[in-house]
Amino acid sequence: MIQVGIVGGTGYTGVELLRLLAMHPGVKVAVVTSRAEKGLRVDAVYPNLRGFNGLCFVAPIIENLTACDVVFFATPNATAMHMAKDLLAAGIKIVDLSADFRLKDVSVWQQWYGATHVCPELLEQAVYGLPETNREAIKKASLIANPGCYPTATQLGFLPLIKSNVIDTSMLISDAKSGVSGAGRSASVVGLMSESGESFKAYGVPGHRHLPEISQELEHVSATPVSLTFTPHLVPMIRGIHATLYAPLKDSSVDLQDLFETFYADEPFVDVLPAGAHPDTGDVRGTNRCQIAVHQPQDGGVVTVLSVIDNLVKGASGQAIHNMNIMFGLDELSGLNHVGLYP
Amino acid sequence: MIQVGIVGGTGYTGVELLRLLAMHPGVKVAVVTSRAEKGLRVDAVYPNLRGFNGLCFVAPIIENLTACDVVFFATPNATAMHMAKDLLAAGIKIVDLSADFRLKDVSVWQQWYGATHVCPELLEQAVYGLPETNREAIKKASLIANPGCYPTATQLGFLPLIKSNVIDTSMLISDAKSGVSGAGRSASVVGLMSESGESFKAYGVPGHRHLPEISQELEHVSATPVSLTFTPHLVPMIRGIHATLYAPLKDSSVDLQDLFETFYADEPFVDVLPAGAHPDTGDVRGTNRCQIAVHQPQDGGVVTVLSVIDNLVKGASGQAIHNMNIMFGLDELSGLNHVGLYP
Amino acid sequence: MIQVGIVGGTGYTGVELLRLLAMHPGVKVAVVTSRAEKGLRVDAVYPNLRGFNGLCFVAPIIENLTACDVVFFATPNATAMHMAKDLLAAGIKIVDLSADFRLKDVSVWQQWYGATHVCPELLEQAVYGLPETNREAIKKASLIANPGCYPTATQLGFLPLIKSNVIDTSMLISDAKSGVSGAGRSASVVGLMSESGESFKAYGVPGHRHLPEISQELEHVSATPVSLTFTPHLVPMIRGIHATLYAPLKDSSVDLQDLFETFYADEPFVDVLPAGAHPDTGDVRGTNRCQIAVHQPQDGGVVTVLSVIDNLVKGASGQAIHNMNIMFGLDELSGLNHVGLYP
Amino acid sequence: MIQVGIVGGTGYTGVELLRLLAMHPGVKVAVVTSRAEKGLRVDAVYPNLRGFNGLCFVAPIIENLTACDVVFFATPNATAMHMAKDLLAAGIKIVDLSADFRLKDVSVWQQWYGATHVCPELLEQAVYGLPETNREAIKKASLIANPGCYPTATQLGFLPLIKSNVIDTSMLISDAKSGVSGAGRSASVVGLMSESGESFKAYGVPGHRHLPEISQELEHVSATPVSLTFTPHLVPMIRGIHATLYAPLKDSSVDLQDLFETFYADEPFVDVLPAGAHPDTGDVRGTNRCQIAVHQPQDGGVVTVLSVIDNLVKGASGQAIHNMNIMFGLDELSGLNHVGLYP
Repeated sequence: MIQVGIVGGTGYTGVELLRLLAMHPGVKVAVVTSRAEKGLRVDAVYPNLRGFNGLCFVAPIIENLTACDVVFFATPNATAMHMAKDLLAAGIKIVDLSADFRLKDVSVWQQWYGATHVCPELLEQAVYGLPETNREAIKKASLIANPGCYPTATQLGFLPLIKSNVIDTSMLISDAKSGVSGAGRSASVVGLMSESGESFKAYGVPGHRHLPEISQELEHVSATPVSLTFTPHLVPMIRGIHATLYAPLKDSSVDLQDLFETFYADEPFVDVLPAGAHPDTGDVRGTNRCQIAVHQPQDGGVVTVLSVIDNLVKGASGQAIHNMNIMFGLDELSGLNHVGLYP
Repeated sequence: MIQVGIVGGTGYTGVELLRLLAMHPGVKVAVVTSRAEKGLRVDAVYPNLRGFNGLCFVAPIIENLTACDVVFFATPNATAMHMAKDLLAAGIKIVDLSADFRLKDVSVWQQWYGATHVCPELLEQAVYGLPETNREAIKKASLIANPGCYPTATQLGFLPLIKSNVIDTSMLISDAKSGVSGAGRSASVVGLMSESGESFKAYGVPGHRHLPEISQELEHVSATPVSLTFTPHLVPMIRGIHATLYAPLKDSSVDLQDLFETFYADEPFVDVLPAGAHPDTGDVRGTNRCQIAVHQPQDGGVVTVLSVIDNLVKGASGQAIHNMNIMFGLDELSGLNHVGLYP
Repeated sequence: MIQVGIVGGTGYTGVELLRLLAMHPGVKVAVVTSRAEKGLRVDAVYPNLRGFNGLCFVAPIIENLTACDVVFFATPNATAMHMAKDLLAAGIKIVDLSADFRLKDVSVWQQWYGATHVCPELLEQAVYGLPETNREAIKKASLIANPGCYPTATQLGFLPLIKSNVIDTSMLISDAKSGVSGAGRSASVVGLMSESGESFKAYGVPGHRHLPEISQELEHVSATPVSLTFTPHLVPMIRGIHATLYAPLKDSSVDLQDLFETFYADEPFVDVLPAGAHPDTGDVRGTNRCQIAVHQPQDGGVVTVLSVIDNLVKGASGQAIHNMNIMFGLDELSGLNHVGLYP
Repeated sequence: MIQVGIVGGTGYTGVELLRLLAMHPGVKVAVVTSRAEKGLRVDAVYPNLRGFNGLCFVAPIIENLTACDVVFFATPNATAMHMAKDLLAAGIKIVDLSADFRLKDVSVWQQWYGATHVCPELLEQAVYGLPETNREAIKKASLIANPGCYPTATQLGFLPLIKSNVIDTSMLISDAKSGVSGAGRSASVVGLMSESGESFKAYGVPGHRHLPEISQELEHVSATPVSLTFTPHLVPMIRGIHATLYAPLKDSSVDLQDLFETFYADEPFVDVLPAGAHPDTGDVRGTNRCQIAVHQPQDGGVVTVLSVIDNLVKGASGQAIHNMNIMFGLDELSGLNHVGLYP
């Protein structure tokens, strides 16, 4: 059994790791840390875990994690970077669900995250944990930068188009919509149901931290420079991301359906829907699956891709476990083969 | 007092007309028709109207409407066209909330609405009832084609940009999101809360009836051909539309905030928010107001417009009453000067 | 025009006062205070008020309120009591939406609210502002203790039964359900949509502050001692309270429908629904109306009353304005005659 | 592998059986019937099942079911009774999720369900499938009447109190609240999100079909006659039931917490929460678990029990699988050991 530690066990990605790992046959959650809830039983804070997890939260210090094979960071940004070096030195693998190791250019990271990076030397070895593009590197990685939720949904939609060079990458648009759990489990006014229920709004239109992450990764695979307009929106639901992607087609006669089906034929967690379909976030609720449909409205010059994930699973904790499965040579589906909770 | 008739009083736009007109000082609702509910008290079907409306539903026949000054059609498409000629001949003004008179080209109408138009000769005289563009024509009109909900939100966002010729109209995108009341009050599986709650999805991506309506109207005011990609989505909330609009800027140095503020300076129902704002559908709930913000993300080559309305008010019944106010020379704000129901 | 001051203008009852008073023909909101938002424009915080309120928040000090005819306190508990005496001395009437003056017994107040009452001498003169029971006293009052939301819905349901002495008051049950806006507009984890959406739970079962308030008022009108079990629940919606009330009938042959209709025949804001009806919180959304239905299931020995209100209107700000209307001799419906926002 | 047939695979209990059985290690779903969708792929109707179920719907006739070891009926009432005799004669076990075999008195059944029962002779042998009371009988049963959702939540809350004879059973109250999925997946107006979202209401107050079912079962275990008032309500959420139960205590000094913990000590799917807790439907979402808390407000004479389940799992399909596990001698937790989907 792989011994797992979770640092930051009281946010939504933390409790989602706990939910998924409780049903994973190959791992044992050995340690869960929380600065705020230290000493409390995990299942006293999260009654959904009663009977599945008898641990108590402990302090987030290296000493509590040394028996782990792998540590997940489900922490706010600029936290994992303070513990990463010591853990790696102790031979412990890391999957960081925060943004600390996602951007290769430290100055860009510092600009968007407003902090000084304490271990820029690790950025080089960190592997961006999108299995659909980096599977081989993930197998050998010690430090995984688990992708953001919007970047996951957006990249999976654009990748087949960019890699096959059928779109003009100078005017990409990702109009993305997220459920409120993406904002995390911190006390706030804006997150109150009275504020975010029965309402819809965009946010971060002038600039959002996921923009440089998406751009960096798309640039890696693109033959031409990428210019992306990214607009996140808040949907009055708890889980789910729907990215609606637009790009000008270079050649409007390409068989887009075939392109997508071929591209993802062997991917266990990307499901290309039949032609004409409209994916629904509700069908992937609680699962590590991305469902995608590709359209060419009016047979015109614009391709529209619809890409849905559960932001807490494929957009965070499920993808983190997928990365762990790959790192440790487990069946990729292990602990992740759930049917979406519909309705 | 203006005598009002409402044909089709049992759908959401019908009951919204009843709600708004009950608080309108200058009109009296004299007749409400419903084929299905004929004979029933209106407030037995809609308990929110108890004490405000003592009428019973009557059959939708001309004889029941002859004492009216104006008749609103809150009916399914292809209904108003069967009664319009007789009503006009009787000197009764018409505001049609359905799509029967919105498209000038009858062949386009027949293609998208799948029916034969029975009075194409009226299309010429019908005035498209978007007050912000057609106020003078509305004053003299007898037959108003009240705009669709998505077209209202989309046009109000694009108009200042197109009229001032600052965008490339060959790649317009309207990524629009609507609350579920837009689908109407008919029994359906897809509209069940179990289906549309806690979920988000696009629909009609290959083609939606509001596309030709928007294109027709934008073409009217554009110096260059308009090519629009329009994607409607369903949001798990009841009321509200949020249109997120994208266009390439011809000149990225134009003062977009000033452009919008100037354009709408005298409009009572369009509210341009301060620079940097993100409008929220919840702030216009129950009102005839459109709140708009304009952004130029990263000072780049794409303009992003955020436009929100209440689909049942500015997107339907409120705009219909606004048109009536203009047609009858009433104060435009009459009966429509409500504060948004927040939270 | 009556000059109004609002102390605590940034909570939900404050902004609801602003919404309703903006549409009230007989008053002018002259002052809005907020310690936290001092100096900010009111409509910068609440964009739904743009065009209706050009004021800026000022500090909550007596000097800012001396020109007012009436001051509403939309503050947390234990705030109004610090300013009440000075305002009354200045001849300014007070409507306190908090709990400071609701309980006549200061020791009970101090037990439930965990504070020392600084002006217990005012408790005697404070009038409990439930117009349906205290209209005459309200007319002459200077200090109104505006009822709580649950107490309003519960009392209006029990009053006809208790005053006519047809139930056994020793086992009353109020199983009450509230939308989340009842918890106010303060940053919290429990109020996050991720926590309170798609979920239903009771809270405060061992004891809730509204219990002594309800008991006190029902005891006033009851011939026999009142023993009440009160269970509040949180509903995943924003506005609305539904109280389901149970009591053993002393005589199961009484005509309950007639009893309720007669009791409320002259009340402008209590609407007894026809026999067999089930009131829906959605039908009173945004209004000052209480809709009630009374049932005797299986013609048995228990009466079940269903009572719905909008917690922010009849349960708070609307009732406060109703009290103001009565105090100042205005038409009771003034500014409150809205149709429920359905759907 | 147990061969399973599902009759009525297109309602919510049907698709929930498919979801849960897809993750059950000991069974194979061999047949899924649907009159309306015959010939269609199951995963074309339910995209959440893509990759898990390659079957097509077939007609609901005996010939299609003869290879099954067990058949689940996820059908409307008055359907299973037409096929039950033939299936049993063929040696096939039946778990009926509808109400056809729940009531022992055929005249009561016919009164509440408005139909003539075609096989009253089977009522005697049908076992009411509440494992917590009937485990031994279920082991030997061929025909299981799977309990209703409200009855499950209500009985589990009252059973410890009634069996230990600590309450007065002459005034029991079950104030129960259900998510909208309980109304099923049939086109309707009342189920539209525009109707049931942002609203709360009771229904069926004069009488609901689950009342005789609950009464029958509680009478079985009660030393004294049971008189129950049952009020169902509709909550604007998809899944979950919260039953709030009230009863007068005969002796207010009994240790209720200990009573409940002892009573359910060995039950795998009933989780008694610590003293003072308030269960949340969100914590059991997607699971077969009932979480219960017991309170004695103000140490008074009334006991309040809070009982939550997922109506589609413990209230329907999960309990049906639990019954199957018991009938076939499988581990009771098999296929049902999920962690609640929080948030």
